[in-house]
Amino acid sequence: MSEKPSKKDVVSELKVVAKEVYGTITDKKLPSLNMPIRALQNVKYDPKVGFFELVGKNKERTLTASTVKTFAQTLMMMNESKKLVETDDIATKREVYYISKNWGEARFLDQPESDTVMDDIEAMMMTNREQLGFIPEEKGGDVAGELVVIDIDSETGKEIKIDCTKFGSGAYSVPSSVEHLKFQTDAKFILAIETAGAFQRLLKHKYWKKANCVLISMGGVPTRACRRFIRRLADDMKLPVYVFTDGDPYGYLNIYRTLKVGSGNAAHINQFFCVPQAKYLGVTPQDIIDYKLPTHPLKDIDIKRVKDGMKNDPFVQYHKEWQKALNQMVSMKKRVEQQAFAAHSLNYVIDTYLPEKLKKPHTWLP
Amino acid sequence: MSEKPSKKDVVSELKVVAKEVYGTITDKKLPSLNMPIRALQNVKYDPKVGFFELVGKNKERTLTASTVKTFAQTLMMMNESKKLVETDDIATKREVYYISKNWGEARFLDQPESDTVMDDIEAMMMTNREQLGFIPEEKGGDVAGELVVIDIDSETGKEIKIDCTKFGSGAYSVPSSVEHLKFQTDAKFILAIETAGAFQRLLKHKYWKKANCVLISMGGVPTRACRRFIRRLADDMKLPVYVFTDGDPYGYLNIYRTLKVGSGNAAHINQFFCVPQAKYLGVTPQDIIDYKLPTHPLKDIDIKRVKDGMKNDPFVQYHKEWQKALNQMVSMKKRVEQQAFAAHSLNYVIDTYLPEKLKKPHTWLP
Repeated sequence: MSEKPSKKDVVSELKVVAKEVYGTITDKKLPSLNMPIRALQNVKYDPKVGFFELVGKNKERTLTASTVKTFAQTLMMMNESKKLVETDDIATKREVYYISKNWGEARFLDQPESDTVMDDIEAMMMTNREQLGFIPEEKGGDVAGELVVIDIDSETGKEIKIDCTKFGSGAYSVPSSVEHLKFQTDAKFILAIETAGAFQRLLKHKYWKKANCVLISMGGVPTRACRRFIRRLADDMKLPVYVFTDGDPYGYLNIYRTLKVGSGNAAHINQFFCVPQAKYLGVTPQDIIDYKLPTHPLKDIDIKRVKDGMKNDPFVQYHKEWQKALNQMVSMKKRVEQQAFAAHSLNYVIDTYLPEKLKKPHTWLP
Repeated sequence: MSEKPSKKDVVSELKVVAKEVYGTITDKKLPSLNMPIRALQNVKYDPKVGFFELVGKNKERTLTASTVKTFAQTLMMMNESKKLVETDDIATKREVYYISKNWGEARFLDQPESDTVMDDIEAMMMTNREQLGFIPEEKGGDVAGELVVIDIDSETGKEIKIDCTKFGSGAYSVPSSVEHLKFQTDAKFILAIETAGAFQRLLKHKYWKKANCVLISMGGVPTRACRRFIRRLADDMKLPVYVFTDGDPYGYLNIYRTLKVGSGNAAHINQFFCVPQAKYLGVTPQDIIDYKLPTHPLKDIDIKRVKDGMKNDPFVQYHKEWQKALNQMVSMKKRVEQQAFAAHSLNYVIDTYLPEKLKKPHTWLP
């Protein structure tokens, strides 16, 4: 599932589309471009597939007086992608917007315009924009533990081995694009962590060595690069992924749900960016009781978020365990943070909570 | 200036304060704690000193019926700090708050309460809280280039050398606390960059090798760890620091100003977290004209931010060059982004802008 087109494929597919448009024009017919409709209503969830899938039809962008500018912009951006891939360069979404300033009448007036065209091309090519040479602004996560990342030296083309056990209190910072990375590891699992604070505690006490795992700090809702990194590492090395976040609607429905099955408004790329093998380790509402954790009251907005999820989120609707957990949280009116274990003792999370939870998969959530 | 107390010093200073309190109590007198008043109005700027300094008087917290809880909390937290330093452990601000749940009546009701006591202790000890074993939630910046970071293995106590030229497209992620790090480098300067996107471009084309420098991605306003890392690296290795941000009030007055001289509301720690040797390389308002850059209109809130800075910011008030630049920006009514150079060509920033600017220090801002 993490398979993606090679560089050669991207360029040749771009050429196929361009040639078709060119041929249609020289035949004095109206050229058109086909792309899937990207919208929340076009999403379904099947756990066997593992991510939110598009179910809708394609839209066709035919060259007319009213579409001429967007049509030209789409072709110009496809050309930019071809150049990037051929020269092994990259451009951020923001840079692509600025590049368009040289396109005369076809230039974008603001970035949302150019982002939409980029999303269209991404969907049309059924690939992710990193494959097209377009990288996100934001960085990926931080990594430490039993993992060697193999990168390519951009000058010499030689492999570089990055040993993530050798960074002391620091970490390996995942690049904006991870498609070219390879991995070596004997780790037993990946532990994806919500906060930098919890990550730093596990790192300080070399939890990765005790548990033989790879630690990844997501820093809130994981970026595309972070999600893709976890996915590729989990696929290539056949590693299970356990997720450790705050026990609140944001941790459950934004961070974990997005990591595992993707999001609704970017459904055309979920197949590359989801991590279907992810399991939710904690902090669950039941953990609040089992571990006697100090809590905070659930806010009205938290309760609303849960009710929205129950009503509209295909992922929650599919999983009875999640409905039960969310109902339990709402009836307790409590949320909990991953650092709450410090109330017992600073390293309780390392010495007691994580080892116990890892031995009890029946306490996890799907 | 980056000198800081050793572990032994911290513990012995904590003991001195505690013994004094204990002695006063056994003498049947009212014990008190002294700490500087932390407030914007108590700040002055002298470029020879290089950072916002406290000018105000101390406040005294004497044990009375109304201060008894805060007094107890301060002593409990000092005790926590002593334990952390002695066992070489760390706790985030959030964890300290949770630890207090075991302090009975002295427990904190919410985190702002415990953060305030932590700031008080920090100011009282005239050190930074990382020295007291308290680390920030957030991570530091990303680093790549001609630098070897020397960390300590927390298990063996042996040195670990981290070569920042060997991360490929990834980077070294700065830990939450950097006091224990040492450095080796032959680099000529540090380039501190606002956005992950701009950093990734320079990294992709190994700009650090061409320019023989260390690249640091701040990701917006730099965290304490990122600022302290730059400061320690610049001091220890005697490196100049050049700063490259978007050309807007946020880049000038939030990111750059905070990096260079610190902030008003944390004045008691500016001496550790400022980078007085920083120079502002770009993007300046004059660069918009000189490099024919595409711009965005300045918003009302941007103009307000500039006027506030002119009126209230001791840093702006001291530097005529900054006043001139800010006035120029306001009269042009334009702001510019560091990725705007892509309008010329994707690597214009590497091939033309940065090399030219580095040769023209008279175009920089102080």
